[in-house]
Amino acid sequence: MKSERFLRACKRQQVDCTPVWLMRQAGRYMEEYMEIRRKYDFLTMCKTPEIAAEVTLQPINKLGVDAAILFADILLPLEGMGIDLEFAKNEGPVIHNPIRSAADVDKLRVIEAEEDVPYVLEAIRILRRELNGRVPLIGFSGAPFTLASYMIEGGGSRNYVECKRLMWQAPDVWNRLMEKLTDVVIEYLRGQIRAGAQAVQVFDSWVGALGPSDYKRYVLPPSRRIMDSLKNEGVPVIHFANNASGMLELVREAGGDVIGVDWRVDLDTAWERIGHDFAIQGNLDPITLFAPPQVIEERVKDILQKAGNRPGHIFNLGHGLHKETPVDHVIALVEAVHKYSHRPSATGAAS
Amino acid sequence: MKSERFLRACKRQQVDCTPVWLMRQAGRYMEEYMEIRRKYDFLTMCKTPEIAAEVTLQPINKLGVDAAILFADILLPLEGMGIDLEFAKNEGPVIHNPIRSAADVDKLRVIEAEEDVPYVLEAIRILRRELNGRVPLIGFSGAPFTLASYMIEGGGSRNYVECKRLMWQAPDVWNRLMEKLTDVVIEYLRGQIRAGAQAVQVFDSWVGALGPSDYKRYVLPPSRRIMDSLKNEGVPVIHFANNASGMLELVREAGGDVIGVDWRVDLDTAWERIGHDFAIQGNLDPITLFAPPQVIEERVKDILQKAGNRPGHIFNLGHGLHKETPVDHVIALVEAVHKYSHRPSATGAAS
Repeated sequence: MKSERFLRACKRQQVDCTPVWLMRQAGRYMEEYMEIRRKYDFLTMCKTPEIAAEVTLQPINKLGVDAAILFADILLPLEGMGIDLEFAKNEGPVIHNPIRSAADVDKLRVIEAEEDVPYVLEAIRILRRELNGRVPLIGFSGAPFTLASYMIEGGGSRNYVECKRLMWQAPDVWNRLMEKLTDVVIEYLRGQIRAGAQAVQVFDSWVGALGPSDYKRYVLPPSRRIMDSLKNEGVPVIHFANNASGMLELVREAGGDVIGVDWRVDLDTAWERIGHDFAIQGNLDPITLFAPPQVIEERVKDILQKAGNRPGHIFNLGHGLHKETPVDHVIALVEAVHKYSHRPSATGAAS
Repeated sequence: MKSERFLRACKRQQVDCTPVWLMRQAGRYMEEYMEIRRKYDFLTMCKTPEIAAEVTLQPINKLGVDAAILFADILLPLEGMGIDLEFAKNEGPVIHNPIRSAADVDKLRVIEAEEDVPYVLEAIRILRRELNGRVPLIGFSGAPFTLASYMIEGGGSRNYVECKRLMWQAPDVWNRLMEKLTDVVIEYLRGQIRAGAQAVQVFDSWVGALGPSDYKRYVLPPSRRIMDSLKNEGVPVIHFANNASGMLELVREAGGDVIGVDWRVDLDTAWERIGHDFAIQGNLDPITLFAPPQVIEERVKDILQKAGNRPGHIFNLGHGLHKETPVDHVIALVEAVHKYSHRPSATGAAS
């Protein structure tokens, strides 16, 4: 059943216990990762399928999570669009040719997955072989707003001044940029699915910078187009909108099979607002993993209790794992989720 | 009526038009401010009553806002507690002796306003004379959680790892720290009120780092004690909880006469959830001020329409003014609020 838990929960089918995986489960908190990271820079790791695959597998072996998520960066498909991307030491991503005008947008290419991100597809093929059905493999992409925010700001941002300024000052340019990014995200995810991804997650990591009116006008339509376009691909789509507690109803409208929520809202309230016709993913505060194991356990129980016995809950953090997280606490978390959600009576019950 | 608008709206009484003031309305976006700032460092400005008063008055004369808010920093009362505070160039506040243990907490003093922040009280006295009834003067304090987060982290933070770790690992130490901070906030605000502040705002700027369960257990009780203690002081209390869209019901429970909300939730939804027995303050995205004036106007109309004709709305931003905001856009904002909320039929109508 372990191999099926995650995909069954995405479809809101009965499971033997709540599946769990963790955003950024492959990463710097793990010694195995750091061993490789010391030898290669971050982009080289992403672009070498064997390394990306190996790093993806590390948490599967170590943590006992119920799904693998491809090791990659959300900005990878931007290079094929014509974006000059660098990961500067300790600074995060830097984009040397930020997008600020209609001419900048016109120059952007829509990628073709096989041609522009072959290494991502190859990593997926390797992983499907290596995983050999043990757990499913999740592919992913950034959402158009989040990708646009990096492209316009030239990197990470605190206030998104340039991004919002473009959106409000030149809505036509904004819309064309979102149009292209939407095409890219669809092509990128379809490529991943063709290569073998068994589910995909769309990360709208920074959409919480917007209020509901702006989300509705400038972000919801392109996000919905992505969700609609992926409906017939036969794999569940997880839509994670970070820091969007004030507008979960709009995220629901944008769609997806599973809605991922952060920790700033109670899971029961969030699910109620999103609707029980969606599966839900979340939502432990990632910093809880710095707390003593009994606190972690208590919080796990609290979230499981809020999810109730309704099928369709995938346990996850409310945001990515922090790089200094103690790895034994992560192992304890996964164990606690399985232990406290075990439903012996449900074993074998099909929905 | 201009002089009364703000206080009447705090009490949910009829007004001739919606009062507006702006968080961080005195600041670096204004040339008059920069002229003084070039001569003095930030802490000197805060601690010299004549300068603090002058800077407080700048936006009153320039913008036409309906309330003045004392120019000060939320960390000022911490010095009297024994905190070694510095405003490092371009880095924001640095605390050289962060609080991490029971012994650290035990050493902290509870301040006495007249003794430890006499310059704040003196600035208030000067301001009441200078304002001479033109608009009311708002005093303010950080909320215990927000103050604690700076004290524990040693400055601003992105993930609040140390703060949350202390909260979860040593809840007794946390509670003692919150107890002392609560006493400090109450004494500080009572001192401001005695000196002449006609309303006070409690800023819980970083409480959005917490999920609802933690807020309820570790933050709500001390915040409520502050609101309860100020009930008999005869001035309205504004409780601003930033990034708390997921738990407005709990912020309501903590109390205050006016609840301030950020821009990540629609004002009508927020007011509904908080309850119409509270006044509400907000909630324009501060970055909107970088947009063209017609966009600002449209957003003002949208927020006013969401507030409806119900008394008790104070227009404000959803967070502080950004330092690079064009000042003429700020002036246009204030004008638009007054223009589009003008209620000729309500003039003279008392509630």
